[in-house]
Amino acid sequence: MNYQRLQRVAAQMKRAGLEQILVTATTSVYYLTGYWVEPHERMIALWLTADGKAVLFGNEIFGLPSTPELPFVAHRDGDDPVAGLAAAVKPGRLGIDKFWYSKFLIGLMEHRPDVTPVHGSVPVDENRKYKDAAEAAAMRHASAMNDQVMAAAMAAVREGVRENELAALVNREYLARGADCEGTQLVCFGPNGADPHHSGDATVLKPGDSIIFDIFTPISRYWCDMTRTVFYKTVSEKQRRVYELVRRANEAAEAAVRPGVPLAELDAIARNIITEGGCGPYFTHRLGHGCGIDCHEPPDVSGASDAVCAPGMVFSIEPGIYLPGEFGVRIEDLVLVTEDGCEVLNKYPKELQIIP
Amino acid sequence: MNYQRLQRVAAQMKRAGLEQILVTATTSVYYLTGYWVEPHERMIALWLTADGKAVLFGNEIFGLPSTPELPFVAHRDGDDPVAGLAAAVKPGRLGIDKFWYSKFLIGLMEHRPDVTPVHGSVPVDENRKYKDAAEAAAMRHASAMNDQVMAAAMAAVREGVRENELAALVNREYLARGADCEGTQLVCFGPNGADPHHSGDATVLKPGDSIIFDIFTPISRYWCDMTRTVFYKTVSEKQRRVYELVRRANEAAEAAVRPGVPLAELDAIARNIITEGGCGPYFTHRLGHGCGIDCHEPPDVSGASDAVCAPGMVFSIEPGIYLPGEFGVRIEDLVLVTEDGCEVLNKYPKELQIIP
Repeated sequence: MNYQRLQRVAAQMKRAGLEQILVTATTSVYYLTGYWVEPHERMIALWLTADGKAVLFGNEIFGLPSTPELPFVAHRDGDDPVAGLAAAVKPGRLGIDKFWYSKFLIGLMEHRPDVTPVHGSVPVDENRKYKDAAEAAAMRHASAMNDQVMAAAMAAVREGVRENELAALVNREYLARGADCEGTQLVCFGPNGADPHHSGDATVLKPGDSIIFDIFTPISRYWCDMTRTVFYKTVSEKQRRVYELVRRANEAAEAAVRPGVPLAELDAIARNIITEGGCGPYFTHRLGHGCGIDCHEPPDVSGASDAVCAPGMVFSIEPGIYLPGEFGVRIEDLVLVTEDGCEVLNKYPKELQIIP
Repeated sequence: MNYQRLQRVAAQMKRAGLEQILVTATTSVYYLTGYWVEPHERMIALWLTADGKAVLFGNEIFGLPSTPELPFVAHRDGDDPVAGLAAAVKPGRLGIDKFWYSKFLIGLMEHRPDVTPVHGSVPVDENRKYKDAAEAAAMRHASAMNDQVMAAAMAAVREGVRENELAALVNREYLARGADCEGTQLVCFGPNGADPHHSGDATVLKPGDSIIFDIFTPISRYWCDMTRTVFYKTVSEKQRRVYELVRRANEAAEAAVRPGVPLAELDAIARNIITEGGCGPYFTHRLGHGCGIDCHEPPDVSGASDAVCAPGMVFSIEPGIYLPGEFGVRIEDLVLVTEDGCEVLNKYPKELQIIP
């Protein structure tokens, strides 16, 4: 149990008027307890009360210890998975983690009509926005590995290579550097790059193609996430113009990061540059997303975000321009907000690169 | 909309006393509508009533059409995602799909205190157990591809190869045969095979190792899933004895499959053979699992299962023996229950194989 984090969450609970919450997301349970449990269809729930008490309920198959500090109440396959929880929780409002499965919530409510479920993720999510020193170190390490993997991916670009070959290579390079698992890497040649979510398929590289590498993985539980766009053999004037517009948007937004700046303003800075360059309609997504134990987590970095930069926040800055049927350009870094600006966690260069 | 499936689900709803349900799982929505939507944190819900009416609610980002047969009620990011649903559903009991996120259910209940959420996955899950002709054809095709990929993986075994190299090769071979995505393949050398869930890491192959290939992927939305265990260069007497025990258990259970046989009995047949061979305590999991649009889906194939074989069911038969610190053996096929027995979907041989 990480008591510093638990105390901060308990304080948030009081602020939110929540006497008790159930924390059930794999990443949030890990954040507080250090236990990584992927329950799949089974149940795990960390019951927290605003006075800082914590009890863990879950399937015995998870093999968790029960300690005086953090009792583990186990059930078995075939048991009613929520019986233990139902016997423990207090009457009244109970904050529920946003992604808990309805089958468990309905089961709990059938046992306990005196309990009123309410939205309950905010106390943990709010804390997870601000990375502590251990988390910042983990994210710095993951992004340093990402710089190396990006370089390896660039070195593997050659005539006739397929997108999914490069994606598989990225996964292998990640695994060699301690990645927790393989993932779906976004490698997009030419017109495929105009779809921001295209993932590597059997498309073959041709001279004149743009290449988007949007690569990301968890390493020791914390994610890296970086995008670079390069050109193969030649670059057209249009490609160059679009590239430089995206690069300016990326760099201007990063230069503006400091405590007190609204995240919506960062989105506006990047979007204005792209709009003034005539490509506004082709920047079709938000500027970025928070990143940590989840690849996508709060804070939101968009025009609709009400979050404000504060030390410890880590989020992506990833403007893009997508020209349907032609090509796409996206440039993404993770940044860590510091006391007086930000640390850009990715060091792989952003100058326009033509791979010979 | 697949009206045959919808009609069967509506009949199940009446049998279960459910006037209305929300279907929210990606796979179940696909099963009924043909739309494949991975909503991530966003909302999708197919509202069905027992008279066979269907309305789809979801984020406009999914880009679904709205038709007279299947109206699509769209909301946008930033809207209350459940407002449309809350305006539509009828008072009283509302069946809820088991994995729907609590944040949506709580939101809906706040709008509609006159609605009582109850467990609601059974009508669709019950139907999905019995594959129709189109589904059986898809699963036959996926397993035929799996036979080819298994052969390619075996051909790539060589001194010094790493588990994760072979796992990556399996993914590439799948992609070349139309797999929907990459996955985590279980490739386990020697003692790693004693952990039934070990996935390929940087372990290097050595002579005398057993090699477990448990490989699986969706192809055109339907999963294949097969396990073979082979030996590298040499096989010890103990390895041979354990292998033949697992093979007998696999083949005896498959030979017993026919309509009317309880799935618990199949588990017992395999388990008895392994127990009589002295390895009962080392067969640490259930015999198998249903397989279809989800890799793991009903029916359960275990001693606790109350399901009975019926034509159209597809499930795995995968006995295993795991000797901690030494090695593991598992042999798995998918079987399709027919009118008078079963069709084993995997053809890759099961004779003891020593790779030279």
